[in-house]
Amino acid sequence: MKVITGLILAIAALGFSGMASAQFAKPEDAIKYRKSTMFVMAQHYGRIGAMVNGKVPFNAKAAADNAAIAESLSRLPWAAFGEGTDMGDTKAKFEIWKEQAKFKEDADKMQSEMSKLAVAARTGNLDTIKTAFTATSKTCKSCHDAYRDK
Amino acid sequence: MKVITGLILAIAALGFSGMASAQFAKPEDAIKYRKSTMFVMAQHYGRIGAMVNGKVPFNAKAAADNAAIAESLSRLPWAAFGEGTDMGDTKAKFEIWKEQAKFKEDADKMQSEMSKLAVAARTGNLDTIKTAFTATSKTCKSCHDAYRDK
Repeated sequence: MKVITGLILAIAALGFSGMASAQFAKPEDAIKYRKSTMFVMAQHYGRIGAMVNGKVPFNAKAAADNAAIAESLSRLPWAAFGEGTDMGDTKAKFEIWKEQAKFKEDADKMQSEMSKLAVAARTGNLDTIKTAFTATSKTCKSCHDAYRDK
Repeated sequence: MKVITGLILAIAALGFSGMASAQFAKPEDAIKYRKSTMFVMAQHYGRIGAMVNGKVPFNAKAAADNAAIAESLSRLPWAAFGEGTDMGDTKAKFEIWKEQAKFKEDADKMQSEMSKLAVAARTGNLDTIKTAFTATSKTCKSCHDAYRDK
């Protein structure tokens, strides 16, 4: 049973990294791509945070627009963590490639919470948005703690 | 009449850059944001190009997926060309801020062609995609020729 589980994980990991490496001309492009998508996502996510934390006035349309963009962006970085992209101008920890199934699980959790945030943002209710925002932020933090160098 | 047209353009330009500067904590963030969005868009656009130019086998689903992402990304860079973002680590020419209405027209044209490419990509017909890709590439080139330093 353990062998089968191990095999399934190995195949999943292969698919995960195989998919990734095929799409970029060189490792630097993959690194730049994942940093770019994370940065753009963080900009839009941060605008929701500013409203949630009362730093800027709440604007329902802006919250919904930013959440929709952050949700789209949340799908993108993962394909850029292929084999051979662990070196270079990156804070990505080697653990990402040692624990690919766990990393994928964290990435999936973030995307799932980000989708819930996008739904919440469309309600136009700041309290609903706040709850979803807090849940999403937790997934950012736990993944960064485990897989990103300081 | 000329005065009125001038005024309308001035108001349009104000709105254009006013919107832009409010969203970023500092000019460097705006510059990094527009470069990031352009880079990510170019990665996805380039994958369609590789199919169009016969460098990789045509895959209808990949073409449609990449075109949809490129289309989403094509909406983003423009808010990051606000006042005060003409200096720093950027190839953006000063003409962008001198000719804001013309720059916006070019930006709109690109987004419009990119949307047509996304529609074309959903047909799954390589010739249709090729035509739309060529039209889109022209808008990239003419805007880069006018507004981006070599």
